[in-house]
Amino acid sequence: MTTIETISEQRCFGGLQGFYSHASEACGGTMRFAVFMPPAAENGPVPVLWYLAGLTCTAETFTIKAGAQRAAAELGIALVMPDTSPRDTGIDGATGDWEFGEGAGFYLDATEAPWASRFRMYSYVVDELPRVVSERFALDMSRQGIFGHSMGGHGALTIALRNPGRYRSVSAFAPIVAPANVPWGEKAFPRYLGDDRKAWALHDATQLVRDGARFDGRILIDQGEADGFLTNQLQPQRFEAACEEAGQPLQLRMQPGYDHSYYFIQSFVEDHLRHHAKALAV
Amino acid sequence: MTTIETISEQRCFGGLQGFYSHASEACGGTMRFAVFMPPAAENGPVPVLWYLAGLTCTAETFTIKAGAQRAAAELGIALVMPDTSPRDTGIDGATGDWEFGEGAGFYLDATEAPWASRFRMYSYVVDELPRVVSERFALDMSRQGIFGHSMGGHGALTIALRNPGRYRSVSAFAPIVAPANVPWGEKAFPRYLGDDRKAWALHDATQLVRDGARFDGRILIDQGEADGFLTNQLQPQRFEAACEEAGQPLQLRMQPGYDHSYYFIQSFVEDHLRHHAKALAV
Repeated sequence: MTTIETISEQRCFGGLQGFYSHASEACGGTMRFAVFMPPAAENGPVPVLWYLAGLTCTAETFTIKAGAQRAAAELGIALVMPDTSPRDTGIDGATGDWEFGEGAGFYLDATEAPWASRFRMYSYVVDELPRVVSERFALDMSRQGIFGHSMGGHGALTIALRNPGRYRSVSAFAPIVAPANVPWGEKAFPRYLGDDRKAWALHDATQLVRDGARFDGRILIDQGEADGFLTNQLQPQRFEAACEEAGQPLQLRMQPGYDHSYYFIQSFVEDHLRHHAKALAV
Repeated sequence: MTTIETISEQRCFGGLQGFYSHASEACGGTMRFAVFMPPAAENGPVPVLWYLAGLTCTAETFTIKAGAQRAAAELGIALVMPDTSPRDTGIDGATGDWEFGEGAGFYLDATEAPWASRFRMYSYVVDELPRVVSERFALDMSRQGIFGHSMGGHGALTIALRNPGRYRSVSAFAPIVAPANVPWGEKAFPRYLGDDRKAWALHDATQLVRDGARFDGRILIDQGEADGFLTNQLQPQRFEAACEEAGQPLQLRMQPGYDHSYYFIQSFVEDHLRHHAKALAV
């Protein structure tokens, strides 16, 4: 059983908001994560919704800024918020660039040195952390959903598409849907994964759908029309076209006036939680 | 007309969350504040609810952490969040102590040198900032409410009690209700106000009620029972006793398990907004 250190636990909407750390095998060092347990967890295991955050974020970002605990408490859903990368890696070049390295793990397992030793967020989010949290918290692991923002929206979409049956629901705020073809991915993928674009395709939601991956259910995406990254980095129409061609159900909602921030996320987070709650109901 | 500089404006719950700065006469320097305008403001002036934050906080704290914009948007109420003190004062001793000076203005007008030149948050919140925001935003200044947290709860209670008729509603989260008799006030008041306790009494909600001040309406206070400052600094029973003796309507709700943080505040902020909305309705 994994030792989990409690950093803090605080009452919130009748439930418990906690921050924790543990020694991660996948990432080769200490990892922090946040969990919100709704009041319903006092009566037994509850469904769990994974939130993956974006570039520069930590386990604190969504926890503090999204206002999601209110709806999660009402709906009886646990929230798990991992960090976005390993920390304090000591690897040369791992800090100082907000688009790569610490805070920018891209939810993949790096295969290139020196990143491969620590930057293994795919295995961490898909395999290790679910095992760790299920040992400690009253979670019904047969009822999981996943969502995220920006780089974390990329993580949620690719992880859900690559693990059919694992997640009952998936959604995203302003996701990076085609990293292999936009600057953020074109910068990070060669360093993490090497130059073979076949490896990149496993971490590109649009390419995954084009290559036959499907999610069994409707994918929900909200995208702000005033998002400064919309045209250059996000390009949701790439994913929309792939889903349409593939017959993958997708609801892409363009939201006039909204930008890339947590003011956008908090405005629609209840919608997303209700989207997940429908699929996570017994 | 005062020049207001826009730092940022972002769409949030169909309204607009902005951060602004201006040259303050009362505080002798640049002051920052935040305003949330609900969607209803597109159709004309809306009621305004003032939020005063606690020790160490800024105009960002409640804006980012409280999740109040959702209910404010629904209820059609504007939120104004001032900073907690002047900044960059350059006064020796004004920084480095979280309980005094910058970030700890205590919503009073200092009379003692060197603080009297800049630390005039009472005049700023009561006189100057209302004038400034009413020039720029579609606010119905005949419908104002005020609330706050900890030091800001002290500010809300004392300002409402000292300005009868100005505010239609008042509430507080974990307020400092008797600063003249607890360590925070006993440390700050002599330096800001001198040693004459008659001056302190004007900034002590419990003493104000004992001295005859009344609020025309029910005061709402939420207090977490697991608040680490409860016994030493907050002591709400002092205010409760004064209100009971004076016949001042007060609803003091002790909340089991909650601490002093914004996880506590966000859990009850909708209740407070609905409390204010009732009084602010036309």
